[in-house]
Amino acid sequence: MKALTPEELQEMGAEIILSNTYHLYLRPGQERIRRLGGLHKFMHWNHPLLTDSGGFQVFSLHSLVKVSEEGVQFQSHLDGSRHRITPEKAVEIQEALGADIIMCLDECTPYPASHEEAERSLELTLNWSRRCKESHRNPDQALFGIVQGGMYSDLRRRSVETMGEIGFDGYAIGGLSVGESKGMMVQVVGETAPLLPAHQPRYLMGVGTPWDIAQTVQQGVDLFDCVLPTRNARNGMLFTRKGRLVIKNARFAEDDLPIEPGCSCYTCRNYSRAYLRHLYLAEEILAMRLNTIHNLHFYLTFMKEIRQAIDQDRLQEFLKDCHPLREAEEEKEADGSDSSSPCFRKASSLEKSPGRSGMFNSNLKNL
Amino acid sequence: MKALTPEELQEMGAEIILSNTYHLYLRPGQERIRRLGGLHKFMHWNHPLLTDSGGFQVFSLHSLVKVSEEGVQFQSHLDGSRHRITPEKAVEIQEALGADIIMCLDECTPYPASHEEAERSLELTLNWSRRCKESHRNPDQALFGIVQGGMYSDLRRRSVETMGEIGFDGYAIGGLSVGESKGMMVQVVGETAPLLPAHQPRYLMGVGTPWDIAQTVQQGVDLFDCVLPTRNARNGMLFTRKGRLVIKNARFAEDDLPIEPGCSCYTCRNYSRAYLRHLYLAEEILAMRLNTIHNLHFYLTFMKEIRQAIDQDRLQEFLKDCHPLREAEEEKEADGSDSSSPCFRKASSLEKSPGRSGMFNSNLKNL
Repeated sequence: MKALTPEELQEMGAEIILSNTYHLYLRPGQERIRRLGGLHKFMHWNHPLLTDSGGFQVFSLHSLVKVSEEGVQFQSHLDGSRHRITPEKAVEIQEALGADIIMCLDECTPYPASHEEAERSLELTLNWSRRCKESHRNPDQALFGIVQGGMYSDLRRRSVETMGEIGFDGYAIGGLSVGESKGMMVQVVGETAPLLPAHQPRYLMGVGTPWDIAQTVQQGVDLFDCVLPTRNARNGMLFTRKGRLVIKNARFAEDDLPIEPGCSCYTCRNYSRAYLRHLYLAEEILAMRLNTIHNLHFYLTFMKEIRQAIDQDRLQEFLKDCHPLREAEEEKEADGSDSSSPCFRKASSLEKSPGRSGMFNSNLKNL
Repeated sequence: MKALTPEELQEMGAEIILSNTYHLYLRPGQERIRRLGGLHKFMHWNHPLLTDSGGFQVFSLHSLVKVSEEGVQFQSHLDGSRHRITPEKAVEIQEALGADIIMCLDECTPYPASHEEAERSLELTLNWSRRCKESHRNPDQALFGIVQGGMYSDLRRRSVETMGEIGFDGYAIGGLSVGESKGMMVQVVGETAPLLPAHQPRYLMGVGTPWDIAQTVQQGVDLFDCVLPTRNARNGMLFTRKGRLVIKNARFAEDDLPIEPGCSCYTCRNYSRAYLRHLYLAEEILAMRLNTIHNLHFYLTFMKEIRQAIDQDRLQEFLKDCHPLREAEEEKEADGSDSSSPCFRKASSLEKSPGRSGMFNSNLKNL
């Protein structure tokens, strides 16, 4: 996790981390990590880990990707070397890394895509998913399939049905946060999530803002990953229940308040907005640390409160009480200063929430 | 302290931090810090703080500095704005910042300098020191004078005598680590330190490597500041008792050992050289943190052991046991890969050691 130690993450209640297979495959290499005892030991994190398949980074970081029925070919962004990742290879790499949850290789259907393009892309993902399932050997690793189908209800439905027939330990909804509107994203999730098995984890990839998460939890999503809290923190954008705060703003120059009064995170307990602004403008490493601590604390606390509200059967009331957050985010979207974009998918963080069925926790424990 | 929190420093035994007046004067400004409750509160460090006078950064960061009897004129490296710092202003700025120990404005005599140049420079520093003493008002802040005189014994002696007549709470030896050889540095300290009052702190500015410190503690120095442990850490250069380790080296790619086996720092307890190499090559912020923790732990532990050896009257034996460290550093110097240079004076760290007389601790408590 950029800027933080595993102990810091654990203290603020993080239970699972996402690591990017693409980056680890290129450097230091999965076989090296295997020889060094696996990813948990290598990175000093003795709790659940999820690795993505590497496919998303291949598609998002490279303009020259060759996709075939066989797999994807690309050149390393580090040294230009040529690589090929097949579904079998994606599973093999993730087995060597040794995460608790691993993902099938998929093609992230671009947006916009015609029905024909989305269908062709979906068929490829379905074939790749079958091959991932067939090559999956390690029973200690849960294998998740990824539902694609673009923005088309019939394709999403077909994807869910076929993935269910293949049979996975959990299901992700992919191909969102790729440039479509928030309304479209929420609609696709609303149509797709309820079709997924109620007793298995449902994971919405690359989403999102706190309000995105709140809305899609309502639709039955259990698990999210997003770079937003950590990347925004490094760029001086801080989350509060009343909206976002841009720390470099001159109005904070002599502001003795913490980022969010009442917040119990280490940063808010000990530092003023004025000091955080100073550290940010001076480009200090500590600015990135302290901002990351606050934003992750914000997300993790928000998820915890959502879980409690679900447990107490008062999710609707909880979400109504979040109206300042909703309004702040809707304003952001309206003025175009925020959008669901693929860059949010270069995720380095992952947070968990229980499903409405409350089954996610018990599933996770069984993994 | 770059990359670390105050709590981390405290846990590893740091007792005092140096903050750079020059940087804080330009941004965020001493009056802003005063209004926000002073430097201790601003940076969340409730322990001793020392501020330098700002003069060293003015001289080292600017090619166009105008020095007159009145003071120094320079342009900000941030926005080109013009500034003038006089001895009175240096004290005023440091009073606003509110550190426990503040320094007189001095001219750091360049190296090489003729006897005439060094003498003229010394006279300027002595006059400025008198003016600093006269403008010093706050009895809660200890004011230290800085001994100059270049590499000339007679000038160093004259400097010590005149500074003693003016009368300060402690004395620093300045104008070293500016390009002279190690041998010359050690000789000047050896000639100067014993002339200073035995019952007041003696502070060697901008020094140095562990072996530099060991040698000059023998000569009676109590207090040091140096950027070496923190800057080298950020550049992947790690200190061990057997010499330095360059973490990016390919031979560490699959090295499962910690930086220094047996070291009790957080980094060595939890991470392999292989992982630290990976983080460094991936330019992760965490690499800078973990490396800084190790190097500062190394320095602070080394100082602690020196203090214990002094207390137990076995400093000579302790230093003999450090021969691998000495040899490694002498090799470094011989091959020119390390030198005492002014850049080491852009200090962000400061460590303390007791004097041979053991008076330093009690003096510090009385400050």
